[in-house]
Amino acid sequence: MNEDMTDETITRHVGTVYIVGAGPGSPDLITVRGMKCLRLADVVLYDRLVDRRLLEEARPEAERIYVGKETGSEDNQQEHIHGLMIEKALRGQTICRLKGGDPFVFGRAVEEARSLLKAGIPFEIIPGISSAIVVPVSAGIPITDRHLNHSFMVIAGSRSHSLDSTEWLAARTLVKGGGTLVVLMGLSRVHSIVESLLK
Amino acid sequence: MNEDMTDETITRHVGTVYIVGAGPGSPDLITVRGMKCLRLADVVLYDRLVDRRLLEEARPEAERIYVGKETGSEDNQQEHIHGLMIEKALRGQTICRLKGGDPFVFGRAVEEARSLLKAGIPFEIIPGISSAIVVPVSAGIPITDRHLNHSFMVIAGSRSHSLDSTEWLAARTLVKGGGTLVVLMGLSRVHSIVESLLK
Repeated sequence: MNEDMTDETITRHVGTVYIVGAGPGSPDLITVRGMKCLRLADVVLYDRLVDRRLLEEARPEAERIYVGKETGSEDNQQEHIHGLMIEKALRGQTICRLKGGDPFVFGRAVEEARSLLKAGIPFEIIPGISSAIVVPVSAGIPITDRHLNHSFMVIAGSRSHSLDSTEWLAARTLVKGGGTLVVLMGLSRVHSIVESLLK
Repeated sequence: MNEDMTDETITRHVGTVYIVGAGPGSPDLITVRGMKCLRLADVVLYDRLVDRRLLEEARPEAERIYVGKETGSEDNQQEHIHGLMIEKALRGQTICRLKGGDPFVFGRAVEEARSLLKAGIPFEIIPGISSAIVVPVSAGIPITDRHLNHSFMVIAGSRSHSLDSTEWLAARTLVKGGGTLVVLMGLSRVHSIVESLLK
């Protein structure tokens, strides 16, 4: 058999990346599908907000890599995560990228998906329970109540986003109209946020 | 032993009601905890939007009762559900109240919880993945994207809620500011909604 021909017919096995929402904290609030992917993985890349008990669900021999962000160059750290996922997948490994909450609510899943798409790596995104909805409820505040409101809004309170923006204006309007407003990542300037909402 | 004394010491066994979010459709998008409650239940009360394959996960001998709402007296139907849950729980049965999506996003879980509280029935609410977040994503629209927006809003489009309300004003403002707006249950007047948002 001609060696060149053999080379051409080799099917290179590329691993799949599962971007999985781990949910709001309690390890049994991950979805059944997310748990299945976690148990299947050769490599688990996990964030700071992921409950460590979930990691025990992965196979004993699975590689567990902490990729939680430290303060500082977040973009570089994000690039590092993309690189890791692509490298492991090209080796044929199955990857579970485990993120706190829901990957699509202020996570960077969109960027991760784009980088995988660009590299030709197959991936799937499995949603998770967002803390935006569960945390108010566990504090006794139903996010909607048919006798009180018809809407809720979730906004990132991070400092990079000016309180004079149109999005914050919408938030102020909503609060006046009786809708529920959930502010995530706003602790460091909670006083300015509350003041601005009461304007 | 004195019979009266025996009576006093009998602990009446009351069943627990688990109000479980079944998630957005696919049966494996229920949480691990929700699935556990479903498999444990003596009685399953399920809604119209619940995938029928989930019902196969309940014990073969579990009673499955359809309580999806028909058009017409919704309040009476809701009362009927409360009555059923209370009656079964007082008999000592474990109940799984299975609702589509998340019980707290425009569901009537708040009312169900209140009726159980009033009747002294122990209950627990297990969140589910809300279609409000997953459906846009599966249509290729990430609900947040750090390069585009810092917020999203979910509003009920039902006819009972005037498009002139402050909540809809907030929605219009948000759309102008680049935030993501998700309208649930708005199909029957989608044209008026879009027109009003473009004002």
